Amino acid sequence: MIFYYAPFTCALATQIALEEAGADYQPRPVDFRQTEQRSADYLKINPKGRVPALVTEQGIITETPALLAFVAQTFPEKNLAPVSDPFAFAEIQAFNSYLCATVHVAHAHRLRGSRWADDDAAIEAMKRKVPQTMTECFTLIEEQMFRGPWAMGDNYSIADPYLFTIAQWLQGDGVDIDRFPRVADHSQRMRQRPAVQRALQAQET
Amino acid sequence: MIFYYAPFTCALATQIALEEAGADYQPRPVDFRQTEQRSADYLKINPKGRVPALVTEQGIITETPALLAFVAQTFPEKNLAPVSDPFAFAEIQAFNSYLCATVHVAHAHRLRGSRWADDDAAIEAMKRKVPQTMTECFTLIEEQMFRGPWAMGDNYSIADPYLFTIAQWLQGDGVDIDRFPRVADHSQRMRQRPAVQRALQAQET
Repeated sequence: MIFYYAPFTCALATQIALEEAGADYQPRPVDFRQTEQRSADYLKINPKGRVPALVTEQGIITETPALLAFVAQTFPEKNLAPVSDPFAFAEIQAFNSYLCATVHVAHAHRLRGSRWADDDAAIEAMKRKVPQTMTECFTLIEEQMFRGPWAMGDNYSIADPYLFTIAQWLQGDGVDIDRFPRVADHSQRMRQRPAVQRALQAQET
Repeated sequence: MIFYYAPFTCALATQIALEEAGADYQPRPVDFRQTEQRSADYLKINPKGRVPALVTEQGIITETPALLAFVAQTFPEKNLAPVSDPFAFAEIQAFNSYLCATVHVAHAHRLRGSRWADDDAAIEAMKRKVPQTMTECFTLIEEQMFRGPWAMGDNYSIADPYLFTIAQWLQGDGVDIDRFPRVADHSQRMRQRPAVQRALQAQET
């Protein structure tokens, strides 16, 4: 499998999951500084012009929640999600969907405001609100959604790399992660996992 | 099961899936005009203050992509998704994740801009761009993602109610659905399905 990613993006979540699963894959960076995600070649991989994208023998998969569930289902022996229990699986998917459609979207208003408005003042206004929206999202995660010791409770799952990935954006978004002690502790424990270390190293090279 | 929804929201997608599955559930409207989604009682159901939410015997599920997969997995005999085929399931989940995190989000900038900026001019600027962003999203769906006759190809799946639901928002977003002939035809065929008619009727009462 070939895994297209860019450093500091949500692709890190899937790369951690691939590492946790012991998947056989080649990481391939997409150079956002050169806008490679909009190149004709890359648009053939992912017409949405985004990362991550995973090229498998059967075809290409995009979108972090779909990729995380795919990794869990493809490597059931790694117990990355209770894929055969509809309710427990739905709980994890709901957690990941919130990260994807609400938290990542809130964050994106800092650097990607031009997706949703054309004028500079509006884009600046979006930037200004990001610390507030990210604080609200992580307050909800800290107080209501995070179960501990892992995101979904006793078992490490595909929700953990995703939460870790987005939590690493808080500092850049002007929010102190230490306002959320359980999330901060989770991030620290994540960094001790060999799979996370391997994924982070791969992102940095 | 109790299904919390509000008319004209993305909750329609899950309600259609529940109807397709023949699920035993009670629909319960949440009155957005009275801001009931922010009431103390409803926040106990869904601390995010949104619909849909499904109360099951095991607990509560939120987030449309999670709910759609839950319905497909709970009623495997209805063949609403190839839940045991990791790749085929990931393709459907990727489709639904795009609808959730990109298309629904683009649409939300018309009426919910205050989520992402505080000043009125910025909120107006967001509104102005919605016809363009929704057109871009549906161009991609029409030309690249939609397989036909159903969203994912020969088999009706949980991607279809979700696509149908969001396509119904195009008119209000200032986009003529007939610019996307395959999507428009899909919506027409969806309206002929008894499950869709039942879900639409339930939303209107």
